Amino acid sequence: MSQFELYRRQTKPILPSCLHGANYQLHTGEKTAPIADEAEIARLFPKTTYLPLLDIQPSSEASQSLPPKKVGVIFSGGQAPGGHNVLCGLYDKLQQIAPKSTLLGFKNGPKGLMTNDYVELTAEFLAPFRNMGGFHAIGSGRDKIAKPADFDAAAKTSESHGLDMLCIIGGDDSNTNACLLAEDFIKRGLKTCVVGVPKTIDRDLFSTKGIECSFGFDSATKVYSELIGNICFDCLSAKKYWHFIRLMGRSASHITLECGLQTHANVCLIGEEILEKKYTSKQLFEYLADCITTRANAGKHYGVCLIPEGLIEFIPENNELFNHLNNKLLPTWEGELTADAVAAKLPDALRKTFLSIPPGIRSQLLLDRDPHGNIAISQIETEKFLVAGVQEVLKARGASFKFSPLYHFFGYEGRCTAPSDFDSSLCYGLGSVAAVLGCNGKTGYMASLRHLAKPPAEWQPIGLPLTCLMNVEMRHGSPVPVIMKQMTDLKGNPFRLLVANREKWLKEDDYQSPGPIQLVSANSADGVAVCARPTITLLEEAKK
Amino acid sequence: MSQFELYRRQTKPILPSCLHGANYQLHTGEKTAPIADEAEIARLFPKTTYLPLLDIQPSSEASQSLPPKKVGVIFSGGQAPGGHNVLCGLYDKLQQIAPKSTLLGFKNGPKGLMTNDYVELTAEFLAPFRNMGGFHAIGSGRDKIAKPADFDAAAKTSESHGLDMLCIIGGDDSNTNACLLAEDFIKRGLKTCVVGVPKTIDRDLFSTKGIECSFGFDSATKVYSELIGNICFDCLSAKKYWHFIRLMGRSASHITLECGLQTHANVCLIGEEILEKKYTSKQLFEYLADCITTRANAGKHYGVCLIPEGLIEFIPENNELFNHLNNKLLPTWEGELTADAVAAKLPDALRKTFLSIPPGIRSQLLLDRDPHGNIAISQIETEKFLVAGVQEVLKARGASFKFSPLYHFFGYEGRCTAPSDFDSSLCYGLGSVAAVLGCNGKTGYMASLRHLAKPPAEWQPIGLPLTCLMNVEMRHGSPVPVIMKQMTDLKGNPFRLLVANREKWLKEDDYQSPGPIQLVSANSADGVAVCARPTITLLEEAKK
Repeated sequence: MSQFELYRRQTKPILPSCLHGANYQLHTGEKTAPIADEAEIARLFPKTTYLPLLDIQPSSEASQSLPPKKVGVIFSGGQAPGGHNVLCGLYDKLQQIAPKSTLLGFKNGPKGLMTNDYVELTAEFLAPFRNMGGFHAIGSGRDKIAKPADFDAAAKTSESHGLDMLCIIGGDDSNTNACLLAEDFIKRGLKTCVVGVPKTIDRDLFSTKGIECSFGFDSATKVYSELIGNICFDCLSAKKYWHFIRLMGRSASHITLECGLQTHANVCLIGEEILEKKYTSKQLFEYLADCITTRANAGKHYGVCLIPEGLIEFIPENNELFNHLNNKLLPTWEGELTADAVAAKLPDALRKTFLSIPPGIRSQLLLDRDPHGNIAISQIETEKFLVAGVQEVLKARGASFKFSPLYHFFGYEGRCTAPSDFDSSLCYGLGSVAAVLGCNGKTGYMASLRHLAKPPAEWQPIGLPLTCLMNVEMRHGSPVPVIMKQMTDLKGNPFRLLVANREKWLKEDDYQSPGPIQLVSANSADGVAVCARPTITLLEEAKK
Repeated sequence: MSQFELYRRQTKPILPSCLHGANYQLHTGEKTAPIADEAEIARLFPKTTYLPLLDIQPSSEASQSLPPKKVGVIFSGGQAPGGHNVLCGLYDKLQQIAPKSTLLGFKNGPKGLMTNDYVELTAEFLAPFRNMGGFHAIGSGRDKIAKPADFDAAAKTSESHGLDMLCIIGGDDSNTNACLLAEDFIKRGLKTCVVGVPKTIDRDLFSTKGIECSFGFDSATKVYSELIGNICFDCLSAKKYWHFIRLMGRSASHITLECGLQTHANVCLIGEEILEKKYTSKQLFEYLADCITTRANAGKHYGVCLIPEGLIEFIPENNELFNHLNNKLLPTWEGELTADAVAAKLPDALRKTFLSIPPGIRSQLLLDRDPHGNIAISQIETEKFLVAGVQEVLKARGASFKFSPLYHFFGYEGRCTAPSDFDSSLCYGLGSVAAVLGCNGKTGYMASLRHLAKPPAEWQPIGLPLTCLMNVEMRHGSPVPVIMKQMTDLKGNPFRLLVANREKWLKEDDYQSPGPIQLVSANSADGVAVCARPTITLLEEAKK
């Protein structure tokens, strides 16, 4: 283990004061309802709709120790910093309120639950993973519990171990699965309570009812902002390049927004804004060319532009085009698949869109196909797509200044970093909340913490019914109940802060370098200021 | 400014105890000689060859304050973390030993010196840059002082300001320039002393006579290792991908070696070894395919492979091919430039080499040409070159296992990070040493510090004659005096440590995650262990 790991694993996360002792009470709050499609959700989830909010308060009366519990836990979906601390918080709280409980970690995601592949998580097993990045203590996976046989397999494993509780650590899809499982287990008469924990660096698992920030967002955006800050200084020192930086986050632009606010990059594209304004690719190329020209006119042939991974799909005309290609044109295609041949067969409006895609990217689109034969939109290097378009615009305008682009993509670099102090404490707290909920027979709940813009000691532990996050959406042509993704709020403070500074950050070199995540001295006075800063997104939203 | 920047700029670098007070003595040590081509270097540098080593010691006798000096400074070449601290160390020491001295920062590299474009560096001007990354206080540039008119311009600026000293902060090329300038200024009868400061994240500016580590290597490798460590944990959590990570450092593999030692990545390619073993591309593809197959046979369809940026040029046959293409075939090419047409015109041996390059890369090679029409070798995405070759080998072998590669390139992300405590102190000390040398009329010297594996207080300040680093090399067909680049020593401890662990790190998942650079509590007991760790390369070399 590195010196850093040795030091870090001994650090104690800060537990909200409500969760400190073994004495607590579970308060029942107001009844909840689904965020949309109430009748349909209530019909599909008769046992878990309209559950009340719960909150955990300290109690002056001694709580009786619960009998030992049997608990299972899985990681589901992409990694996020802090996952190991959820396991540790869950384990420690279980031993505190239900001594001699057993915790089983199912391996490599939902597959481990369905195939009964597990390891027992003991104090000794967990010790090296405390405050450490990654999900590798038990691994993660993207398998879904979808078919009836999958539900049978999950139920069989739960029943065979006599699980009192199953904790699912995941994003919106995984918690949708948790909700389905909770309902299914009640119907089967299983005693296993299902409790979800909100995980995703993307921050699109969010609810005004009580999920202020899924875990991982804080640490991942800090890693990306560290790198972007470094690139901003490099850019300003060399004065030669425009850096185009694509950031992970396919369905929402929260990560890009936070990184823009942290670093004051010259251009920060927000997918949700492009969608609202119904930008075409061409308009976006023109806008970027304007930005680059504005700086060039001031003698600045350099800059930094942040791009959300999912940008291309936010451009409405692209979505129409991709849908047509995937559903109409490509399935029945005969003969050689060239860009010219495709263009000839497209309806006029879509042909225009197709031809507005830079030629290199156009050919690549047709070549790179996913296993279903669909255009692999996620494979498109959005930063190269944009630059190719910008170069065409600049050429058409006869621009004579120097424009040297460089490309970056940051994603995998931030998902398994050692969690920031914020995420360390958040995750440890979430694991503790999950233990309290599950041990008290609460099922169909999400463990959460409120007031996250305050210091960790003041965070409020709650239980949020999973059904209150759900609505009905079309997937592969059928209506299905899913947790609603939360996109960047264009009326929210974080986005408004960007808009208020956009002009200034474009023209001036007002770069900020947030530096690497600092963890060592969170307990010293100086340390707290540097180590314990939450995201700007969270602080701005707390101003509401 | 970010919270981190506000905190960091107030941190005091640790100055070697020899440089603490205003009382010091300059000891004259043994006479030096050029590292090679002694007679020719002595002929070209009659005034600055055979200068003695110098070292700075504290003195019990009070040193008299020197009269105010006029000093100029430039950054030359690529950015490296800590540059701003060289300026600060230089300024502070000047004010201590020659109060009321003036420091001029020439802007954007050597061009600023030649065009007399400068800013005066005052305490107030420098304050926001203390311990901060980047070179943007005055900017850097890659212009060379090469033609007689360039030397005239540099001399004119120096003379017009009455500079007592010019400090050139740069890598091997820039310090070659410093050496030429020192000799030139003596010949002209100018009083301006020229002192170099060894900067490069690549660590190829190294000398057993006294340059143990150029500044920037420590911080940059720590940033890259942070990211690689994160990717190792991601790889181990998801168990899906092979990550191929190209690292900056075109001419030497020091960065890749250090990152390999820090993270225990499964495969760590060292260019110097490939050169020594005279590997062909095909042999390299086979070797990598073996590594991937070894892991696949153990059920591990994932891994991490580190690749030095300059790898392709270390493969001897490639160099022959590129030379032939650039110097013989391409300059007189007529007709369409296709890979097939080129293959047909190559001599048999080179055709074989050309055809061993994966087809996609082959076409890209012919398309991407630099402004002189040469193959843009530095544009080749080495990681894709290798993977394309590996995929051909695996296909030819009929391998049926899953192999999903992902690509990364880390370079710009690390050059302008806030310097580690090591680089903060190293740079501040180097600036101080340069001030002492220049103020005492020493010219043609490199400021350096020895014993860098010890704590900063014990570092030994020295002056190293620039000529002792020089030899004669062929550049564009002519012999020229240049500072000899120092490649990875295949008999050295750092490389031997890699070799001793190579088999283990390939097969096991022995990943280490060094974490983000920690800076906040270097003064606390815990903090020192985490913040003040030098590179493994340096610690291993100190064992000699």
